[in-house]
Amino acid sequence: MSPDLHHTGRLLIACPDARGIVAAVAGFLAEHGANLLDAQQHTDTEHGEFFMRAEFDLTDCDLTPTTFPECWSPIAQRHSMTWHVRFDGRPLRVAILVGRQPHCLYDLLWRHEAGELPIEVPLIVSNHDTLRPIAEHAGIPFEHRPIVAGDKPAQEAQLRDLFEAQQIDLIVLARYMQVLSSEFLTRWPNRIINIHHSFLPAFAGGDPYRQAYDRGVKIIGATSHYVTEVLDDGPIIAQDVVEVSHRDSTDDLKRKGRDLERTVLARAVRAHVQDRILVSQNKTVVFE
Amino acid sequence: MSPDLHHTGRLLIACPDARGIVAAVAGFLAEHGANLLDAQQHTDTEHGEFFMRAEFDLTDCDLTPTTFPECWSPIAQRHSMTWHVRFDGRPLRVAILVGRQPHCLYDLLWRHEAGELPIEVPLIVSNHDTLRPIAEHAGIPFEHRPIVAGDKPAQEAQLRDLFEAQQIDLIVLARYMQVLSSEFLTRWPNRIINIHHSFLPAFAGGDPYRQAYDRGVKIIGATSHYVTEVLDDGPIIAQDVVEVSHRDSTDDLKRKGRDLERTVLARAVRAHVQDRILVSQNKTVVFE
Amino acid sequence: MSPDLHHTGRLLIACPDARGIVAAVAGFLAEHGANLLDAQQHTDTEHGEFFMRAEFDLTDCDLTPTTFPECWSPIAQRHSMTWHVRFDGRPLRVAILVGRQPHCLYDLLWRHEAGELPIEVPLIVSNHDTLRPIAEHAGIPFEHRPIVAGDKPAQEAQLRDLFEAQQIDLIVLARYMQVLSSEFLTRWPNRIINIHHSFLPAFAGGDPYRQAYDRGVKIIGATSHYVTEVLDDGPIIAQDVVEVSHRDSTDDLKRKGRDLERTVLARAVRAHVQDRILVSQNKTVVFE
Amino acid sequence: MSPDLHHTGRLLIACPDARGIVAAVAGFLAEHGANLLDAQQHTDTEHGEFFMRAEFDLTDCDLTPTTFPECWSPIAQRHSMTWHVRFDGRPLRVAILVGRQPHCLYDLLWRHEAGELPIEVPLIVSNHDTLRPIAEHAGIPFEHRPIVAGDKPAQEAQLRDLFEAQQIDLIVLARYMQVLSSEFLTRWPNRIINIHHSFLPAFAGGDPYRQAYDRGVKIIGATSHYVTEVLDDGPIIAQDVVEVSHRDSTDDLKRKGRDLERTVLARAVRAHVQDRILVSQNKTVVFE
Repeated sequence: MSPDLHHTGRLLIACPDARGIVAAVAGFLAEHGANLLDAQQHTDTEHGEFFMRAEFDLTDCDLTPTTFPECWSPIAQRHSMTWHVRFDGRPLRVAILVGRQPHCLYDLLWRHEAGELPIEVPLIVSNHDTLRPIAEHAGIPFEHRPIVAGDKPAQEAQLRDLFEAQQIDLIVLARYMQVLSSEFLTRWPNRIINIHHSFLPAFAGGDPYRQAYDRGVKIIGATSHYVTEVLDDGPIIAQDVVEVSHRDSTDDLKRKGRDLERTVLARAVRAHVQDRILVSQNKTVVFE
Repeated sequence: MSPDLHHTGRLLIACPDARGIVAAVAGFLAEHGANLLDAQQHTDTEHGEFFMRAEFDLTDCDLTPTTFPECWSPIAQRHSMTWHVRFDGRPLRVAILVGRQPHCLYDLLWRHEAGELPIEVPLIVSNHDTLRPIAEHAGIPFEHRPIVAGDKPAQEAQLRDLFEAQQIDLIVLARYMQVLSSEFLTRWPNRIINIHHSFLPAFAGGDPYRQAYDRGVKIIGATSHYVTEVLDDGPIIAQDVVEVSHRDSTDDLKRKGRDLERTVLARAVRAHVQDRILVSQNKTVVFE
Repeated sequence: MSPDLHHTGRLLIACPDARGIVAAVAGFLAEHGANLLDAQQHTDTEHGEFFMRAEFDLTDCDLTPTTFPECWSPIAQRHSMTWHVRFDGRPLRVAILVGRQPHCLYDLLWRHEAGELPIEVPLIVSNHDTLRPIAEHAGIPFEHRPIVAGDKPAQEAQLRDLFEAQQIDLIVLARYMQVLSSEFLTRWPNRIINIHHSFLPAFAGGDPYRQAYDRGVKIIGATSHYVTEVLDDGPIIAQDVVEVSHRDSTDDLKRKGRDLERTVLARAVRAHVQDRILVSQNKTVVFE
Repeated sequence: MSPDLHHTGRLLIACPDARGIVAAVAGFLAEHGANLLDAQQHTDTEHGEFFMRAEFDLTDCDLTPTTFPECWSPIAQRHSMTWHVRFDGRPLRVAILVGRQPHCLYDLLWRHEAGELPIEVPLIVSNHDTLRPIAEHAGIPFEHRPIVAGDKPAQEAQLRDLFEAQQIDLIVLARYMQVLSSEFLTRWPNRIINIHHSFLPAFAGGDPYRQAYDRGVKIIGATSHYVTEVLDDGPIIAQDVVEVSHRDSTDDLKRKGRDLERTVLARAVRAHVQDRILVSQNKTVVFE
């Protein structure tokens, strides 16, 4: 279901498991004229954590993005909630970071054009100039920020300035082949999505199709995850796989893998921008 | 998640869409000390119908199967609900109806033994005596009820008597190759589950693997559905598919199909006995 | 494996089943210095038909596209073969016919650019002018041939002239929503590939996602097939499916289906242009 | 396609890549009246290795299992082939080694009964007595060989004696939870098949479902492989996967995984007993 950003709100909650939380949320929304459209919960019994996503209709709702926090805080405090609400009707501002491979970029832009992703893309950034024509055809500013003389910190500082100036909500690494520093990552926690071209945790690191070929696996995969300080280890959002056989060369694996990479990345981005993801214990809860 | 039948209740609701239903349900349960473990909803916007499943903890709940209806009826009436609750801790009583093919029977019995299906199987019935040894090995009474001199109504009457005597809640057609009369079917509405060996609506009727072979499809499937008066047309509960190629003979399709049939049927039975299915418009809502 | 068009030949054979055919083919090629790289066969035991694909290295081969037929004909005649060889190093000339939906066109062009499809695309044709910018960005001539005053035969005659003038080998209907006349179809037998947005034979005809939604299926599909006179009934080349649930609206089915359509169509086109498909009994043999 | 063991032969070849091998094989068989039913090849261009499987009809063939080696050896020597032929009409003798979990054993026995596996099962062996009733119901001798006082070498010696006495061709580890010594393994090279309950190389070693749960993967898998000295590192024969979500507990992973384990193991065993597998570089070529 595609949420209509302008007429619905989405509330995400994580808190210690306890009784009556759903009733409290449903009651609060009903009291404020917000019709509950969809509510999903999950309890991690092992860690005693409760997760919830509520989507509600704003038509007769007396809450605004400004007044919500104050009205909501008694309930949030009672249950020690970490929470996040969004109903300002504003699409998320997404920056796409790319290398030299075009397929994931093409795909995100095409889905954006097709209306699959309720986002704005104010800029595309790369350490190479290769994909500039694609950005230009889509009418999106392309910023070439090369890594000069191996000075990655300098380039990263430029990226950070660009993203902050543009008030970027989400950074998508669409086959950007550089590792980002922990300083950079902590600036956008759980807001940087990467696509890794293997079925993680198998074949983390470099050249995963080569690793898969050498191991002789019969299925290859792609994994989209939030980026954390440990390489290819962040919370997994989406994965998909495709069968391969001894007939497939590494080039065949790359070809088949590209189809996975673009759909898996798009699925992860879509879940994020629809406020469907909660993170805990380095894992994700992805509500449907 | 496997519900513990003895300590949880499950409430299924269908009603015209309206505001405040989730809040009403959640509030009602909270009021009666029933901690809401899981609540799922679905709105069919096209037909203006609302569906909900609530699973709740009974530990501190003051409701009993006897008192629930009276306490609940004001809310049910206000929203014109069709509803169903179950929290008597009793596993459903399931009769399995078979023909000559063993694979689906074997599979259901094996899953039952493995604890995957919270059911009782008081009897297995067939118009053939072929599978008696399997039933006996499992220690389940096997009733051979042949169709004598083509008199199907007589045999069907025997089946009905058997099932009524045993207070059967659910009838599973595990490759039972006879069509049941509408009189029989109306006795157990949405409580007779069939497995059809094709990807319905393709290849309804007889010999679907032959039909699939002749059409040259590249994927075959299996479909589990509630049985209705129109052959192979009832509400679909579960489907799955597998790739085939020109190399596969009809025997290969049958072999590959058997694996589908047993997993798809088991999935449908499991969803039913966990009270996860609602039916409307000849379609199912299957909550996860 | 990606055949290198310039240094390999591909021979496709269909004939009545008989002994010694593989030995005859292998011997013939060895005799002429053509190293057999890959040979695949299939016997349709039901119809007594034999199919074979041989791919061979031309490096030391004394055959040419001109001399091949004469040298080969004794074997071909002895076994009453229908056969087809290609080793002129020329990529197939493919015309893409589109309507208003861009996703399949985008996808074919992107794969072409990525080197996945050894083809030339001399023109893109449509009865609408909608997708012209995509063609122009790719630097491919776009021919807008509207159906004026409902006169489809006139428009079809224009298409035929365009395709003949351009010596088109293969026509790809990338969501072209018009039915082609049998006169047109017989001009390119087994050389017109369509993508139908359902899991055929289910939901042939118009609005298949709507049909799938109304039937309540739990899986949807897409089917690529050669076009024949009977609508959506031609030999199936490739199919794929994706799971859906009661949560998915018809718009969701369309969105999920688009991903299937583009990959399935691309797979079919790739198999065709690599000379991997033989047709018999309204079915395909697709060698891997 | 199911080979009829009594009327067909199967020849497996591995050798350095060279020209004319297919022609030599096809010619040899034709010369001896063996009609070539199916020939498949594969060239590992990276390592310059050639692999071939030929299946041939014995009806008018003048070769016997006894005379074949002498007739064939000139070709084999010319190309430095490693080769293996089988056309004695004898089903392979398979020993099944189990622990306490019944699902893979049940499944293999059921498939055997259904005619899916052309094998004999002269014995089932376990270090536990738990599954004896299943073996007895199937009429297969069950040998309980416990590991007494931690003395694994003694128990392994008993296993070896049993298998040698029974002239076992293939050992299937159907969830046998003990590591076998390298001494034992070298006795049956590429003739011991294991099922590991993860998508290898992810989650090798103990408790892979727990590992998968903790990592938060969205897909789990099962892998069947030949056993080598390095744990869970042998040549992979077959793999399959299933989607999971945050809703799935480790028990759910185990339940879903059981379905994978049994189909994947059966697929690997079937490929082996149909002489479809060649091993090189710690990888498999599995002809279809």
